[in-house]
Amino acid sequence: MKEYEIYQLLEQYGINTPKYQIFDIDAPLYFDTFPAVIKIASDKVIHKSDVGGVVVGVDSLEELELARNQISRNLQNRGIFLDVHDKFIVEEMVRGEEFYIGGIYDAIFEEVLLFGKGGTLLEIEKDICYIDLLANQNEIIRSFKTTKISKIFPQFRGKEYKLDYVVETVEKFQKLFMHEEIIEFDVNPLIYTPKGFVAVDARMKMGKKEGHERRKRDYDLFKNDAVAIFGATDKKEKVGYAIAKNALTSQSQVYFVNPRIDKLFGKKVYKSVEELPPIDTALIAIPSKYVVSLVEDLAQRGVKNFIVISAGFKESGNAQDEEHLANLAKKYDLNIVGPNCLGIYNGQKELNLTFAKVAIRNGDTALISQSGAVLSALIDKAYSHAIGFSHIVSLGNMADFDFADAITALQDKESCKHISIYAEGLKSGKSYLESVRNSNKPIAIYKAGKTKEAKKAAFSHTGNISGDYEMLIGLSYAAGAIIKNDIDELIFSAKYASYKQALIITNAGGPGTILTDILVQNGKRMYELSQEKIEQLNQVLPPTWSHNNPVDIIGDATAQRYEAALKILYDPSLLIFILVTPQFMTDGLAIAKRIVGYENVIPIFFGEASFKDVFTFLEHNNCVYFNDLENVANIL
Amino acid sequence: MKEYEIYQLLEQYGINTPKYQIFDIDAPLYFDTFPAVIKIASDKVIHKSDVGGVVVGVDSLEELELARNQISRNLQNRGIFLDVHDKFIVEEMVRGEEFYIGGIYDAIFEEVLLFGKGGTLLEIEKDICYIDLLANQNEIIRSFKTTKISKIFPQFRGKEYKLDYVVETVEKFQKLFMHEEIIEFDVNPLIYTPKGFVAVDARMKMGKKEGHERRKRDYDLFKNDAVAIFGATDKKEKVGYAIAKNALTSQSQVYFVNPRIDKLFGKKVYKSVEELPPIDTALIAIPSKYVVSLVEDLAQRGVKNFIVISAGFKESGNAQDEEHLANLAKKYDLNIVGPNCLGIYNGQKELNLTFAKVAIRNGDTALISQSGAVLSALIDKAYSHAIGFSHIVSLGNMADFDFADAITALQDKESCKHISIYAEGLKSGKSYLESVRNSNKPIAIYKAGKTKEAKKAAFSHTGNISGDYEMLIGLSYAAGAIIKNDIDELIFSAKYASYKQALIITNAGGPGTILTDILVQNGKRMYELSQEKIEQLNQVLPPTWSHNNPVDIIGDATAQRYEAALKILYDPSLLIFILVTPQFMTDGLAIAKRIVGYENVIPIFFGEASFKDVFTFLEHNNCVYFNDLENVANIL
Repeated sequence: MKEYEIYQLLEQYGINTPKYQIFDIDAPLYFDTFPAVIKIASDKVIHKSDVGGVVVGVDSLEELELARNQISRNLQNRGIFLDVHDKFIVEEMVRGEEFYIGGIYDAIFEEVLLFGKGGTLLEIEKDICYIDLLANQNEIIRSFKTTKISKIFPQFRGKEYKLDYVVETVEKFQKLFMHEEIIEFDVNPLIYTPKGFVAVDARMKMGKKEGHERRKRDYDLFKNDAVAIFGATDKKEKVGYAIAKNALTSQSQVYFVNPRIDKLFGKKVYKSVEELPPIDTALIAIPSKYVVSLVEDLAQRGVKNFIVISAGFKESGNAQDEEHLANLAKKYDLNIVGPNCLGIYNGQKELNLTFAKVAIRNGDTALISQSGAVLSALIDKAYSHAIGFSHIVSLGNMADFDFADAITALQDKESCKHISIYAEGLKSGKSYLESVRNSNKPIAIYKAGKTKEAKKAAFSHTGNISGDYEMLIGLSYAAGAIIKNDIDELIFSAKYASYKQALIITNAGGPGTILTDILVQNGKRMYELSQEKIEQLNQVLPPTWSHNNPVDIIGDATAQRYEAALKILYDPSLLIFILVTPQFMTDGLAIAKRIVGYENVIPIFFGEASFKDVFTFLEHNNCVYFNDLENVANIL
Repeated sequence: MKEYEIYQLLEQYGINTPKYQIFDIDAPLYFDTFPAVIKIASDKVIHKSDVGGVVVGVDSLEELELARNQISRNLQNRGIFLDVHDKFIVEEMVRGEEFYIGGIYDAIFEEVLLFGKGGTLLEIEKDICYIDLLANQNEIIRSFKTTKISKIFPQFRGKEYKLDYVVETVEKFQKLFMHEEIIEFDVNPLIYTPKGFVAVDARMKMGKKEGHERRKRDYDLFKNDAVAIFGATDKKEKVGYAIAKNALTSQSQVYFVNPRIDKLFGKKVYKSVEELPPIDTALIAIPSKYVVSLVEDLAQRGVKNFIVISAGFKESGNAQDEEHLANLAKKYDLNIVGPNCLGIYNGQKELNLTFAKVAIRNGDTALISQSGAVLSALIDKAYSHAIGFSHIVSLGNMADFDFADAITALQDKESCKHISIYAEGLKSGKSYLESVRNSNKPIAIYKAGKTKEAKKAAFSHTGNISGDYEMLIGLSYAAGAIIKNDIDELIFSAKYASYKQALIITNAGGPGTILTDILVQNGKRMYELSQEKIEQLNQVLPPTWSHNNPVDIIGDATAQRYEAALKILYDPSLLIFILVTPQFMTDGLAIAKRIVGYENVIPIFFGEASFKDVFTFLEHNNCVYFNDLENVANIL
């Protein structure tokens, strides 16, 4: 497409272009708006500037003529000879800050826009953001604010910059990209003028686009009123044993199915599908070759939820059975989780349908993981730190049920306050973004596969393509997600986000300083001690105490001193940290015993070897604690 | 200073300026190089561009005249009226990429240069780096490479950009800043041209500069052949008891001093200084009011090294005694560590002169900390993870001995391979940078006090000013330091930096993917399995193993399977990670037992609740291990 054809297309979508006129190769030049720019328009030239195909700052008709000759000579010198198919375009010189807008058609996310600072340094500065085709106004602004150039809005060095122009221009390009068969475009520069953005240089590539299909689900994965465990067994070395055992204490009706045994954990074991009472959920932990026919049999009997633990599908070369499962899901409108997964946990029914080695505590965070092993490690860590979950979904191979489905299924669950996601590769980016965008709960995401080596590992591991890290992270953030860079952080949730003021009671100044940085950087205000409180504290603290927040009660602080300071300062509206370092006189366990039990008092025992008894005590008392400082950021 | 006066000064230092001519306010204009720029030169105008004081792109003498009138009108419209003191400056219009160079005189670091991308968006883009006045060529380049604009070097879009010009120009500005009484300057733009950088717009502020003094030390802090502990006591609640106990097992000659007891831990206790045999090091843990006179007494007897544990100095309002200590250090050429510190550890003599609660293992990292509590927490954590230290210095109030002194003292210590620093605020920036620049060991630094609230906390805590975070970090990095963002990372050292290739043996694909990201991002290559090794592994692994590195030996991997894979793949030149997640069949302890004892095999038990027995086993076997993935980056 020639540039003036692109101009015409842009104008159809209301996008400003410079005043311009097109001339045949030898036609007389006439133009009335100066300064002007003259450019070559030829299929033989892609990057006009790089070959001397543009002259700017032309001030008169005579200069225009000279400039045309100059361009012809420049091209000839590079072996490019113009003919009757080529044209010159003369346009007004638009001046202002240079921006960039582009679009690409991605295999996972389909149409994606890029917006940010333009100019010749584009690839060097990379001051751009990702915007989904379906991004709304808030999302466009949220994404744009990640660029540095956004800081000149609303005003910079005496000039006004209107954010409305950004939104309006991006929206016009969204429409263009949606309705035209464009698979790639670049506008650079897109110039900011007091009347709005003007698209000056543009390039487009046309082609066919094929979208991902998306199925609306009618059945709730977490209904789980009656569950059957296929493959429940008394053989301790099998996962069917662990799952049956973990599921025993649930409030759901749980049935075991196994033709070879009669009883398990004192409960009847059903021999076959025919015998079973009606169920809504089937947990399948039987050899892979029997899975497809069992799922179809159950689907015909009206079962809707399937959690397929069994391995031996795509991850080991058996793509066919996996496709069968996907087709059954579509045909019967099923939720099939897995195959090759760790299972699910439903805190509302205290239903643990996983083969995790440790118990799962009830909490308010839902954890969705594409890797069963990452999930098991996180459950293990969470247990030790007394952290619980409302729901857990191990997605496994994602033959059917995926991230978007899991996020959507959690929306009406009151016990779920936050969602954490571990992702390796998505299948359908648009439906994922839609679910994040519409989520009424905060979503945190960690994405593996930044390097090409790791992508290769993830691909051989899950059979899904990992996709571009930057794009997924940029689009997720814009859609409202919180980005995590440390996998362990997924077990935390920002449950103390509503607290505005923080207080630190510490036996050491240095760690108090570090924690202050972390709190303030995460938007907390440091509570200010009143004169009255200071005087009360003077009664119970040594004279060298800090007289300030962090309240440094000095290295020899006893449990009594911690308790006395807390008693004076306790206030249910404050987020209070009891920070303890292993100093010479420190009796961690005595301190822990005096401060457990408050919702808003969080113990930090910064150390390890000296505090092992403390950790065990806090774990047994269901008290969430920290033994480092940086992780505190995750709950703010 | 008017701009043309600055031009003249710059020229004296060989810095290119545009061809220019100065004209009195009403003098006839004559100039022969077009396009040109005309600018006002007046003390009444600071930011010329913002008030219409500059016209660019002037093509002829007539246009020049018109431009001068335009500027006068622009200024009048803003209430600025020119008089005979004002001048116009006409100069050639220099075209090219816009850079920036500036200089500030900082209270801690003295003269510091800033260099990077220039232009009107300078404050928005902040694409600049910090360069010390004394930075050498390598340091200038290292710092410059942190900017995005550096990526156009050596070539961008067909144009050449010479790094030599950067170095040469910065060096000229270093000389200028060193020899002139300038306390602040800005050159923006500094334009890159094929003949070198040209300083186009410049601003300067003159003033007096006062440097920090720096004392050269003759005595080695870590000599410690004969040590006396003043305040050694049998009262278990006193730090003097803990220090005496910790020091017992040293290879140094250790004497206890206390007038009130005769024996301690079966050793003689000296009553007074007079009785004592000759010593080189005095550890002082007595009430603060006696400290100054004791130090002076010992100094007169030739003692050189003092570690003052005692608190009760500047941190509690007693600045006078602290100043006395500093003066004694100067007068007698002493090393005084502290006061108000945790002590020192000297691994060469297995001398633990601290009151840390847990033992300190010998290792190859030296830890220098401004906070005793941070130090005690890190020692506590290190002990649990079987990590050791070559030296430890708790700087405390830094009355005398500071970061630069500690770094310098470690230079000739063979057992010290890496240095880790926890800093709150420096006193003398230049001497610190000099020691980092000249260090023959890698230095990692964590700096507390990013926010103003934390700086306030640090100030009340140590009595030292915290300083600007960005500047300290930028200058430290340029001088060769590694920047840490998580305090726990200081206990690790890049001891595996020399290994080029890495191998992962794992029971899970997901964590293997994450670890691959971490290894590759830190410069490791993933070892490629030969066909031969693959065939050998086929004999011992289940058919679904990954056939690739990460070697995923599948979730049900036993200790035997781990061992078999390791036996086949073991190679002393590889960095090998045994990655274990708590899967259903995993017996962590059995795995740990079969893989300990190799220098280059690092266990990662990713989990917690299921692995507590494993951690205890590895700790007791002096085997460094991880229970997370992200921290692995610190040893690469």
